[in-house]
Amino acid sequence: MIVVMRAGASEAMIETVVERVEQSGMKAHVIVGTERTVIAAAGEERDETEEVLQSTPGVDKVLPVLAPYKIASRETKAEPTVVRTRDLVVGGGNVGVIAGPCSVESEEQIVAAAKAVQATGAKGLRGGAFKPRTSPYSFQGMKEEGLKLLAAAREETGLAVVTEVMTPEHVDLVAGYADVLQIGARNMQNYHLLQAVGETRHPVLLKRGPSATIDEFLLAAEYVLDRGNPHVMLCERGVRTFETHTRFTLPLATVPYLQERTHLPVVIDPSHGTGIASLVPSMCRAAVAVGCDGLIVEMHPDPSKAVSDAAQTIDPTSFAETVTECRRVAEAVGRSME
Amino acid sequence: MIVVMRAGASEAMIETVVERVEQSGMKAHVIVGTERTVIAAAGEERDETEEVLQSTPGVDKVLPVLAPYKIASRETKAEPTVVRTRDLVVGGGNVGVIAGPCSVESEEQIVAAAKAVQATGAKGLRGGAFKPRTSPYSFQGMKEEGLKLLAAAREETGLAVVTEVMTPEHVDLVAGYADVLQIGARNMQNYHLLQAVGETRHPVLLKRGPSATIDEFLLAAEYVLDRGNPHVMLCERGVRTFETHTRFTLPLATVPYLQERTHLPVVIDPSHGTGIASLVPSMCRAAVAVGCDGLIVEMHPDPSKAVSDAAQTIDPTSFAETVTECRRVAEAVGRSME
Amino acid sequence: MIVVMRAGASEAMIETVVERVEQSGMKAHVIVGTERTVIAAAGEERDETEEVLQSTPGVDKVLPVLAPYKIASRETKAEPTVVRTRDLVVGGGNVGVIAGPCSVESEEQIVAAAKAVQATGAKGLRGGAFKPRTSPYSFQGMKEEGLKLLAAAREETGLAVVTEVMTPEHVDLVAGYADVLQIGARNMQNYHLLQAVGETRHPVLLKRGPSATIDEFLLAAEYVLDRGNPHVMLCERGVRTFETHTRFTLPLATVPYLQERTHLPVVIDPSHGTGIASLVPSMCRAAVAVGCDGLIVEMHPDPSKAVSDAAQTIDPTSFAETVTECRRVAEAVGRSME
Amino acid sequence: MIVVMRAGASEAMIETVVERVEQSGMKAHVIVGTERTVIAAAGEERDETEEVLQSTPGVDKVLPVLAPYKIASRETKAEPTVVRTRDLVVGGGNVGVIAGPCSVESEEQIVAAAKAVQATGAKGLRGGAFKPRTSPYSFQGMKEEGLKLLAAAREETGLAVVTEVMTPEHVDLVAGYADVLQIGARNMQNYHLLQAVGETRHPVLLKRGPSATIDEFLLAAEYVLDRGNPHVMLCERGVRTFETHTRFTLPLATVPYLQERTHLPVVIDPSHGTGIASLVPSMCRAAVAVGCDGLIVEMHPDPSKAVSDAAQTIDPTSFAETVTECRRVAEAVGRSME
Repeated sequence: MIVVMRAGASEAMIETVVERVEQSGMKAHVIVGTERTVIAAAGEERDETEEVLQSTPGVDKVLPVLAPYKIASRETKAEPTVVRTRDLVVGGGNVGVIAGPCSVESEEQIVAAAKAVQATGAKGLRGGAFKPRTSPYSFQGMKEEGLKLLAAAREETGLAVVTEVMTPEHVDLVAGYADVLQIGARNMQNYHLLQAVGETRHPVLLKRGPSATIDEFLLAAEYVLDRGNPHVMLCERGVRTFETHTRFTLPLATVPYLQERTHLPVVIDPSHGTGIASLVPSMCRAAVAVGCDGLIVEMHPDPSKAVSDAAQTIDPTSFAETVTECRRVAEAVGRSME
Repeated sequence: MIVVMRAGASEAMIETVVERVEQSGMKAHVIVGTERTVIAAAGEERDETEEVLQSTPGVDKVLPVLAPYKIASRETKAEPTVVRTRDLVVGGGNVGVIAGPCSVESEEQIVAAAKAVQATGAKGLRGGAFKPRTSPYSFQGMKEEGLKLLAAAREETGLAVVTEVMTPEHVDLVAGYADVLQIGARNMQNYHLLQAVGETRHPVLLKRGPSATIDEFLLAAEYVLDRGNPHVMLCERGVRTFETHTRFTLPLATVPYLQERTHLPVVIDPSHGTGIASLVPSMCRAAVAVGCDGLIVEMHPDPSKAVSDAAQTIDPTSFAETVTECRRVAEAVGRSME
Repeated sequence: MIVVMRAGASEAMIETVVERVEQSGMKAHVIVGTERTVIAAAGEERDETEEVLQSTPGVDKVLPVLAPYKIASRETKAEPTVVRTRDLVVGGGNVGVIAGPCSVESEEQIVAAAKAVQATGAKGLRGGAFKPRTSPYSFQGMKEEGLKLLAAAREETGLAVVTEVMTPEHVDLVAGYADVLQIGARNMQNYHLLQAVGETRHPVLLKRGPSATIDEFLLAAEYVLDRGNPHVMLCERGVRTFETHTRFTLPLATVPYLQERTHLPVVIDPSHGTGIASLVPSMCRAAVAVGCDGLIVEMHPDPSKAVSDAAQTIDPTSFAETVTECRRVAEAVGRSME
Repeated sequence: MIVVMRAGASEAMIETVVERVEQSGMKAHVIVGTERTVIAAAGEERDETEEVLQSTPGVDKVLPVLAPYKIASRETKAEPTVVRTRDLVVGGGNVGVIAGPCSVESEEQIVAAAKAVQATGAKGLRGGAFKPRTSPYSFQGMKEEGLKLLAAAREETGLAVVTEVMTPEHVDLVAGYADVLQIGARNMQNYHLLQAVGETRHPVLLKRGPSATIDEFLLAAEYVLDRGNPHVMLCERGVRTFETHTRFTLPLATVPYLQERTHLPVVIDPSHGTGIASLVPSMCRAAVAVGCDGLIVEMHPDPSKAVSDAAQTIDPTSFAETVTECRRVAEAVGRSME
């Protein structure tokens, strides 16, 4: 932690900083510059210490040095984590593909979707049974009935089922049907929920909140990891910016940036990331080219009949073409897509 | 709902749109312009319809006309809602003031804070017992023990207690001690939690998520209102933008903008809104001048000892001066602060 | 400048950093921590050095310590700068008020506007003669004819004229008529223009670009100051964020934040900052309460006839009430508005 | 243009809107819905009209229907524009590659850079002679001397020279040496400059401003096109968002989104878009996969000696590998890179 004093900070102020650094168990190095004095504090950085130093008289700013996440860090575990469930493999050079409708609507719909996924060689089926919706007046999902239909679709196709869990008390229920527990973007900092899925050993697909920083994102993963569940996939699904022509802004640089800092695999969601079906195929290709470990795509047997997210949902034909193109791109960049 | 067709959309495309509009129970009016055809759809707007129309061939864009929230709307209830609990009055021309530490740390600390609040004439005491923290390694609050200390501080001062509830299964516990249930910014779209506090009749302080739009914010309130709890206060606590010199960007225009659209009272949190203690007093004054219905301020008997949010916490002396200044401003703009 | 090495950076890497620090004329202090090595570099910080160190192998990040602006800094000049021209006084405890139409449209219009301004006791008249417009098909201003009409309005009222200059070759022309040269938000980083107004001794009203950081804003001012013109006013007019309900997001915390760092006066523009006429009066009050040194407001004798910015323009009656209210607020916070 | 009235708007208010619509030369259609009245205005949409309607009593909101840009629109010209200069071809299925240092520093440096570019088969050389710098104390470029060195490097390699022009009075000078005139992000709305390059027939590389909307970006292009210069390339170089781990956020969805709306070719700048050299190669690949028409990359013979932008500059070896990988990706998506 680096403490920069204001110009003209008194000796007494500097001493107070040194004392507080040492009270927090760190070691203080005072560096007197031409314009400012800087105190470098070496040791374990806690945010309490940062806050207290920030509010100490004479302090201009406090700059943390260490990453706040530990278990998720590449410095802790150098080799990439690969998440495997049924035939779905995310990471380790393979791009795992998950697709399916926003919401489970009926057995016919989800089975048709699953067959369309299976036909392309993709291995994961997504579908929402519990649906977090911005408005209380929107369709809220088929709930447990939806979970059963997902299981039925898995029965027919062997696909791994990825579905969202919204609240801690549903974790056991959802884990009874799903292969992967999805934490939605709105719940990225729902810490009781993170801890609850951390208590399971199910793979977790953790979506980035639309205004979460990378540190906040990795610390949310850390809540899961810290409970002993190492099977975490990070999912970039777009951030909220001033741009309104797309639903969110999808920053693909997140992928290589995260891969430098964490061993956890990174999945891209171009459906939420753009909100526009016609942009999804090209953004899938770009995601593969940039090196993502997985894709999650909204696909519906008939998007015009979808009860949610119709505008960003592609149909089975477009999905099949997209998978074919992505395979070519994967090959071009030395990766597989199985 | 207005559907704008692309230039050159065919008759068949227009007919499909008209059919889908009418299938959704709305009435379609086709307006053939010089460059584009527009279909105005009158009736109840559902987001499913919007999505489906958006994904219909030949459609350029779909523009909703009606606000998606209903109970929260000023069109539903013209007179402002006033929230009252113990002596705290938020709205109706009075600026209710809530202050106290980020976290409850000890009986001595919370009672000292409560007395400092009481001394200024403010009527609400804030203090976190369950603390949502970005890192799993940060102090997570005193939990039920903290709630008991808040109740003890209320016993001594008569202040109304405002404290956060983080997860549905804690609602009964927290409601047993608190006068106001706070929903934190990270949980603004935790719908199970919103529904759970909606089942109580406790006043709710709902914080805006850092990247929530105004519609999303009001729809979150709608989740509470829709369960029958009308006592909702909206709290603007800053949004996440490219600005990094302050912790968040605090947009005070939210206050008059919301007041035009909703009858719910609007509270400002300049502590989280800036993250910098030295900016809090002037932003409190500005919040009162802009017409807010309440203030919630982080104040600690000794900020340098605070275990959380020290950098944005003011001390009792600064708080007392701030209240005095704010009263003068309130008077200047024709409002009271009692 | 603080250089944080990656965990496991080699001795050779650290030596390269030390060498490059010393080549740039700074002094290096190596601090070996438990997890990372940090090199503190004391001396003049140049962005070239920062970039080069950032790209040196083994470096995790480089954290600048010093503010990059010098002449604008409060550390260079502690007492606040007051800008005075004719009867307009911006700063030094007085809130200078500038108002008038977005565009000069006719002699009748600008003289009527000027008289409405004068009637309230405000001392500055704004009005655009050269208009930067997003679309090439929008009205581009009356140009020199507009300048003449502004001078005529000044003749009648004695108000100081504030008008925008868009390109270096117009600086002499505009300076021949105007009392204050306005640099628009789109031109905040038009460095040739900044240098050209820096060569005059006219007061400059420098608008913040909609995505400029505070450092970038002060460095833009530095371009003017560095050419010898000390009469710079900083104008916050809102930043671009994900919020779309207002035209821009107006962060009033900019005022006290800037006042801690610079001696230059800070003016608020609530018209562009909100884009909505009904929000302007309350945001003016808030700006005064937060401690701004000036206000610039779009006011038109008949907003419904304005050729530009009608939606954010208030009428003379609303303006007069706003000035009256703001005076009361100014008094409540110990400032004058003359 | 669609005018949505407030609930309860009076007949007189609706009539005023209809009058104002018709005064502006549009035709009004009144649609009385169950909750609101909507007036659809057909005809040429001018922003003056939008503003005036927005400020008319009883109006809730005004929604434009038509795109504000005309010449840039795909509706005006369906076939893609291809920009060709020397051997550089941008668009029409070919990905044109431009690379070189941020700043021209010496003949040795720029010629070495040009040869490294040429060796990969890329056809464009970038290099700044006039440098817009955030700080007045940073290196401002070699100016005309730099232009001469660029011409010398072209002499040796045949590469097309791309360099920035900062102010209208330099357009002739720069056009005397350069093959492509670059308009930097800070100058995207410097309208006098846009008009000046619009008077030439040199290809223009127009960079998107960091907070420009897509409409603003295309309207800036429209300023150039409107002066008769059709050779405009749009360059996405990242937008400013809350993300700070990268210098800007690079939204690749801009490429397919623009390609649906405009015939102008779209170039990606991953160097400014990320600000981090290690992310540039993968983002180049992603840009090609998403379908961009060109790449512009900062490459320096020895990045650690670069006087500007060192942290985001790759070296010739990394550049050569990147081009090879991108060619494979281009082939995989059915495009060429020559």
